Amino acid sequence: MRRPWQGRQEEASKTTLPAYDPSCYLCPGNTRAQGDRNPEYKGVFVFVNDYSAVKEEQAEYKPEENEGDSVTGKCYVVTFSPSHSLTLADLSPEEIVPIIQTWTGLYITLLSPTSPLVALAAATTPPSQDHVSANLVRPQQQYRYMQIFENKGAAMGCSNPHPHGQIWVTTGLPEEPALEIEQLKKYRRERGGVNLLVDYARLESEKKERVVFENDAFLALCPWWAIWPFEVMIVSKKHKRSLVDLDYDDTRMLAEAIAEVTRRYDNLFETQFPYSMGIHQAPLEGTDEEVEASHFHIHFYPPLLRSATVKKFLVGYELLAEPQRDITPEQAAARLRDCGGELYRKRLD
Amino acid sequence: MRRPWQGRQEEASKTTLPAYDPSCYLCPGNTRAQGDRNPEYKGVFVFVNDYSAVKEEQAEYKPEENEGDSVTGKCYVVTFSPSHSLTLADLSPEEIVPIIQTWTGLYITLLSPTSPLVALAAATTPPSQDHVSANLVRPQQQYRYMQIFENKGAAMGCSNPHPHGQIWVTTGLPEEPALEIEQLKKYRRERGGVNLLVDYARLESEKKERVVFENDAFLALCPWWAIWPFEVMIVSKKHKRSLVDLDYDDTRMLAEAIAEVTRRYDNLFETQFPYSMGIHQAPLEGTDEEVEASHFHIHFYPPLLRSATVKKFLVGYELLAEPQRDITPEQAAARLRDCGGELYRKRLD
Ligand SMILES: O=P(O)(O)O[C@H]1O[C@H](CO)[C@@H](O)[C@H](O)[C@H]1O
Ligand SMILES: O=P(O)(O)O[C@H]1O[C@H](CO)[C@@H](O)[C@H](O)[C@H]1O
Repeated sequence: MRRPWQGRQEEASKTTLPAYDPSCYLCPGNTRAQGDRNPEYKGVFVFVNDYSAVKEEQAEYKPEENEGDSVTGKCYVVTFSPSHSLTLADLSPEEIVPIIQTWTGLYITLLSPTSPLVALAAATTPPSQDHVSANLVRPQQQYRYMQIFENKGAAMGCSNPHPHGQIWVTTGLPEEPALEIEQLKKYRRERGGVNLLVDYARLESEKKERVVFENDAFLALCPWWAIWPFEVMIVSKKHKRSLVDLDYDDTRMLAEAIAEVTRRYDNLFETQFPYSMGIHQAPLEGTDEEVEASHFHIHFYPPLLRSATVKKFLVGYELLAEPQRDITPEQAAARLRDCGGELYRKRLD
Repeated sequence: MRRPWQGRQEEASKTTLPAYDPSCYLCPGNTRAQGDRNPEYKGVFVFVNDYSAVKEEQAEYKPEENEGDSVTGKCYVVTFSPSHSLTLADLSPEEIVPIIQTWTGLYITLLSPTSPLVALAAATTPPSQDHVSANLVRPQQQYRYMQIFENKGAAMGCSNPHPHGQIWVTTGLPEEPALEIEQLKKYRRERGGVNLLVDYARLESEKKERVVFENDAFLALCPWWAIWPFEVMIVSKKHKRSLVDLDYDDTRMLAEAIAEVTRRYDNLFETQFPYSMGIHQAPLEGTDEEVEASHFHIHFYPPLLRSATVKKFLVGYELLAEPQRDITPEQAAARLRDCGGELYRKRLD
């Protein structure tokens, strides 16, 4: 950390965006790239990505023998609010609740009819009416996994500053959740049904030094295995297999945890803190064991290291050998604990 | 690939740098950050990094019980030539040979006295006298692994454009080579002594569609498992455990393969093509089985996707779920095959 830095400086994201941008393809009433017009939505808005990276039909690609399976899927975009300027850090927990309910609604819609979660899904509070959707036709196919994520900031490849996340569903179980579920299954089998991440959350909650924020249902911490400088995991303290397992109180507490983490991120260097974040949870379709072993959690991977403009490059040694940390997770957690409270900037609706 | 891109544009690296920069801490005769003065070197120059990320003593860090081992090590810098402006793509194979010999020299110096490679090391052509070194004291400790790598370009976290690579040696075997060696050992055991990467190189050399360049000793190809858009692997066609196994002809052919790959990279978008590259080979200290199963190869991980200024962001879905490719390795290989020949820009010594 004492090394002088003469390398690339990030451009700090503009912190004052207008509430409406006539050239933004996500703002209400505007026209998208392929000509569709957005509704005058008031809350959350979901639609199928006009340029989906995975498609329902992959006409051009026929894998050869021994070259693996072709994956098909669908990509959705979820705008967090009609305002071009309100990020998760600007929103109150009450305003984040409809976003979580929108995720939950889509998860339930796409859940396999054979999933052990289906019974519960029927009992879950219906998703808030505070969201609008466009072109959402129930797909013919049963998808295996739903990856909910957000790329925030130009440094994380986000190409439109209007606050939004993405949801990709695929016929295959992607590598990262597959590896996690494998380990969760192993632990569960060896210890007679308990969950690795629930046990881990309990240990961290007792130890405190890596905890950033805690409420009755969720723990936000810098995991000891963190790779990114201010990496955070939000984990449910009780065993929750997926969004379907969250009751209304849980949903509110999750919204509070997301608000606390994103606000602290922005306060840390007084900037729009870039990150990629995403949810890991039970697959849409899976064996009972896979579903039961799954545990709801969110990973935040943010690149900034020293200031609003100097990020950590995970490059040569990190890619070829192994990650190395410039600060410890305990130092990162202490700094994030210390910058709670009000958001440093004024909210511009 | 048809999606419009409104996101971040990289700043294309300046392609005309002066041959000497008075403010560069790597140019001959200049003073480095902590006051040492570089010799007036004429060829390759190696020295211990003034701000090593891993150190021989990690005074400030005492891991707690159950928290893993502390890794110690040493970081070297290797400038490729006295010229501030000559990258690997600018150099001829003859000029790259002394760089490989410098790597080989340091590898031999730090090799464990118990390694099966030691006998051969004595027989290896002595490293070229065309390099100078500063503050290279043989360390007290025996290191386990030597990671040779280069971060090129600001987009890959390189903080000084004077062409140079790095060498980090550590007491531990880092994760990536450890995983590779595990699989190489498994294949070797199951097939009675043959090497997975040698077998793979043979298949690709027959198939041709993923091959970028080939000479008698080495194959440069876009592996079918590639994650980065123009990812390349240079692999030895015969079984070579480490740099020590390369005779003078092999070294020249390796230099040619490196020149061919880096020149094609720069020609592709007529720019200084950024990348991280690094060598995987036998550990400095390891079991006989680890050493015998190892196979010399180089990975190139370059981020550019569509042009000199639009890179592929490996972010949200890639970090949380799994990588997804915008172009196939076969398309990438075809494009790199087609841009061989002279470097697009004039060399400025
Ligand atoms: O040592 P450098 O060139 O200052 O640093 C660069 O390479 C290192 C090894 O890949 C990384 O850890 C740094 O993030 C990167 O900026
Ligand atoms: O879909 P977007 O926002 O255009 O694209 C962004 O997120 C994707 C999913 O992580 C990545 O594959 C792209 O490289 C990135 O630029």
